[in-house]
Amino acid sequence: MAGKQVPVSPLAPKRLAELPPIAGVKLATAEAGIRYTGRTDVLLVTLAQGTTVAGVFTRSKCPSAAVDWCRDNLGSGTARALVVNSGNANAFTGLKGRASVKLTAEIAARAAGCKTDEVFLASTGVIGEPLDASKFDGVLQDCLKRAAPEPWHEAARAIMTTDTFPKVATATATIGGVPVTINGMAKGAGMIQPDMATMLSFIFTDAPIAAPVLQGLLKRGADKSFNCITVDGDTSTSDTLMLFATGEAAKRGCPAITETGDRRLAGFRKALDGLLLDLAQQVARDGEGARKLVQVSVSGAVSAASARRVAFSIANSPLVKTAVAGEDANWGRVVMAVGKAGEPAERDRLAIRFGNIRVAVDGERDPAYDEAATTAYMKRSEIEIGVDLGLGTGRATVWTCDLTKAYVEINGDYRS
Amino acid sequence: MAGKQVPVSPLAPKRLAELPPIAGVKLATAEAGIRYTGRTDVLLVTLAQGTTVAGVFTRSKCPSAAVDWCRDNLGSGTARALVVNSGNANAFTGLKGRASVKLTAEIAARAAGCKTDEVFLASTGVIGEPLDASKFDGVLQDCLKRAAPEPWHEAARAIMTTDTFPKVATATATIGGVPVTINGMAKGAGMIQPDMATMLSFIFTDAPIAAPVLQGLLKRGADKSFNCITVDGDTSTSDTLMLFATGEAAKRGCPAITETGDRRLAGFRKALDGLLLDLAQQVARDGEGARKLVQVSVSGAVSAASARRVAFSIANSPLVKTAVAGEDANWGRVVMAVGKAGEPAERDRLAIRFGNIRVAVDGERDPAYDEAATTAYMKRSEIEIGVDLGLGTGRATVWTCDLTKAYVEINGDYRS
Repeated sequence: MAGKQVPVSPLAPKRLAELPPIAGVKLATAEAGIRYTGRTDVLLVTLAQGTTVAGVFTRSKCPSAAVDWCRDNLGSGTARALVVNSGNANAFTGLKGRASVKLTAEIAARAAGCKTDEVFLASTGVIGEPLDASKFDGVLQDCLKRAAPEPWHEAARAIMTTDTFPKVATATATIGGVPVTINGMAKGAGMIQPDMATMLSFIFTDAPIAAPVLQGLLKRGADKSFNCITVDGDTSTSDTLMLFATGEAAKRGCPAITETGDRRLAGFRKALDGLLLDLAQQVARDGEGARKLVQVSVSGAVSAASARRVAFSIANSPLVKTAVAGEDANWGRVVMAVGKAGEPAERDRLAIRFGNIRVAVDGERDPAYDEAATTAYMKRSEIEIGVDLGLGTGRATVWTCDLTKAYVEINGDYRS
Repeated sequence: MAGKQVPVSPLAPKRLAELPPIAGVKLATAEAGIRYTGRTDVLLVTLAQGTTVAGVFTRSKCPSAAVDWCRDNLGSGTARALVVNSGNANAFTGLKGRASVKLTAEIAARAAGCKTDEVFLASTGVIGEPLDASKFDGVLQDCLKRAAPEPWHEAARAIMTTDTFPKVATATATIGGVPVTINGMAKGAGMIQPDMATMLSFIFTDAPIAAPVLQGLLKRGADKSFNCITVDGDTSTSDTLMLFATGEAAKRGCPAITETGDRRLAGFRKALDGLLLDLAQQVARDGEGARKLVQVSVSGAVSAASARRVAFSIANSPLVKTAVAGEDANWGRVVMAVGKAGEPAERDRLAIRFGNIRVAVDGERDPAYDEAATTAYMKRSEIEIGVDLGLGTGRATVWTCDLTKAYVEINGDYRS
């Protein structure tokens, strides 16, 4: 990526959503020269006093130093600053990595006038290179001076690595009749099969919601969004999804929510879930080398968990993904991927469709199979692969992209 | 593949092994016009009366009709004929598929003068297309007339699909002081992560070994060979590995082996295991688009099964495989793949090497890391990635190949 101009994914949203300010949130970006030159690579977000926080992180056994740091500090439930850098993941950097996150938090805490355990950190980029946190000194202090409520697009750009477009989304909801706003950003294009969260995604709201409630909302929302996408089946060491709630809407009469079961959360939950799914799909749309977005819908499984495993078996199959890239309605490879998933399946009950075109039923090719119509469908930029296992009521939907030569090219020389 | 000339894999063995005749085995190939034109696509092997048989097959929940047929007929333990076709997998073909294997077996049984349940079948090629077995009529009778002990290379060629070279191997051993021969062939280049066996592999020996003993030998051998390779993590619907023992060596004084624990089997077992591993590695060497053979060696795991899962997590990672294709010593991606495997691992005990060059130790980059030496190593055509988890004594070794643009190209238009 560094220096090389990669064309924007053809699956990018037609226009970047405009994000309104969120009371209590200010942002600034800078060029710290971590790895890239001529582009921003640091984001500082400051958060009003009383901001609550929730986070879900990678299940990798080799998490980054920043993930360890965030997990350790999530207990207090409060946040005052978020520092994100691109260009270096600070993962697998041993004691140096731990020293680096500590120094970064100290610099940010001094600048923001808060405690170090109220500073949250995320890093993305190359794994295994020590991150020189002294590069943040001066830079973060300067960011603090410039921090403002507006630069959401700049923030989303500063955290990109191989992404070809910034990923943002906004939503509104009411709590107790008072409107609140949710803004979010995400980055990620490769090493994407989040297993708790995605590469990096940060969500902000002015709603006054207690940290434990926030955590429940985020966990459930992630399971239906970021945990339903894959680019290459590779799970990052740095997956981080955080939700910050400044509570500033309380000043406008918004009731404080302290119980998970509070019915007044219904609208907020729905808006949050929609925003998370939007961002997650944007990540799949920017899958490295992607030319097609693929929705895999599995029904008729013995359980939702089983449906999900079958769906991921299809979505991660290199043979299915290359067939989609080649615009080849090769449904035999879908059969293969169902068969290898290890989940209950009966060949002779299986039905497969591409979009609304049923191609296979009762364990063999649909008697009405229309090759020309199917081939025409495969030329679309958004493809749905539907599988019905015919066994039960379990269903799941996941999203992925095709596997093109560009993926190989991008990843054959990302580091060097 | 059909019609297109693909260059031979640079990882192909320098020369094709010469296979001696095996008493009781005769082979013939023909052009049945299943899918390809201008090349052979059918193999008939006739087997002497008294031939015992063992087989291991795909664990896919959507196995091919031929796999179902072989499983059903393995019980008798005897075989008189093997019919293999390329160009059509006869998988996911429903009742038509069952009728097709039955008709094929009937034609072969009539020609060979044996019972249909002594005929074993295998098909490889496109999934989901009905296979017109009437094309075998006349062809198999003609094969029977021409069958001879010599054409092993022709046989290995007739069963190829996207393979760029035929895969054969031969070995000798003694049982009770009497020399016996083992010949084998295999095909497979994509849809390769065998889960019991490989795409297709057939082994023949003149040793007199009872079917249950043969089955034990084959099962254990497969676990250490074909079940240790992956090209793309995709498990075929047609994986079939069969071992036929004509017993003709008994005429030369070879003792009949009827007990699994028979000590006289030691040499045979070793020779068989070596031959299976040789064939399995040839499949990895012919991985679609492969330019590099990769051996992944994991040690220090809590168990052998755990080591194996970590090894496959590395060997199936698109990011590790594209890095190898790009000759990039991107060991951070190895860390990622260890981390996502879901197996016990401690970041700070992990050590990684490329060949004999240690690149990471104790959870961070090796202080003595030599980028130039590592980069030079990555230019080799055979790469070893070594991972020590530092937890226990479990170890495993698996083989794979790199992921190149050619893989995407081959699979973007294989069917059409």
